[in-house]
Amino acid sequence: MARVVVDVMLKPEILDPQGQAIAGACSRLGFDGIAQVRQGKRFEIEVEGEVDEARLADVRRLAETLLANTVIEDFEVRVES
Amino acid sequence: MARVVVDVMLKPEILDPQGQAIAGACSRLGFDGIAQVRQGKRFEIEVEGEVDEARLADVRRLAETLLANTVIEDFEVRVES
Repeated sequence: MARVVVDVMLKPEILDPQGQAIAGACSRLGFDGIAQVRQGKRFEIEVEGEVDEARLADVRRLAETLLANTVIEDFEVRVES
Repeated sequence: MARVVVDVMLKPEILDPQGQAIAGACSRLGFDGIAQVRQGKRFEIEVEGEVDEARLADVRRLAETLLANTVIEDFEVRVES
């Protein structure tokens, strides 16, 4: 059993009001020196068997079709040891 | 400017219906061999200046009070280069 992690974040040019709200709350709560916060999603996928190139390509296709909206989001797939 | 990443995931013993729905959709869409999916949050925090131990402790406190609900969620803080 191996774990593949998919990180999905809004593209840099897309406004992130959630992140902005968090950044605003930071300064109100006294956490200084925080320039920007962006919020995204993290998926931990437990894959049966070995993770080879074909398997990773499958997960990438999965991320593209199901986990991320590629019009506004970027994603990154990596194997976690 | 440095980037600190905070990953927030539900604790292993907490049920994750979102993740279960995604795992169900995977098999319906023909992505086989996926044992489990868990969904969490990822925060990218741009911090002004250098990230030293004190700064990281600040971010950890921030994650604890604002980003994660530590009753049901675990979090991890790391510096991204």
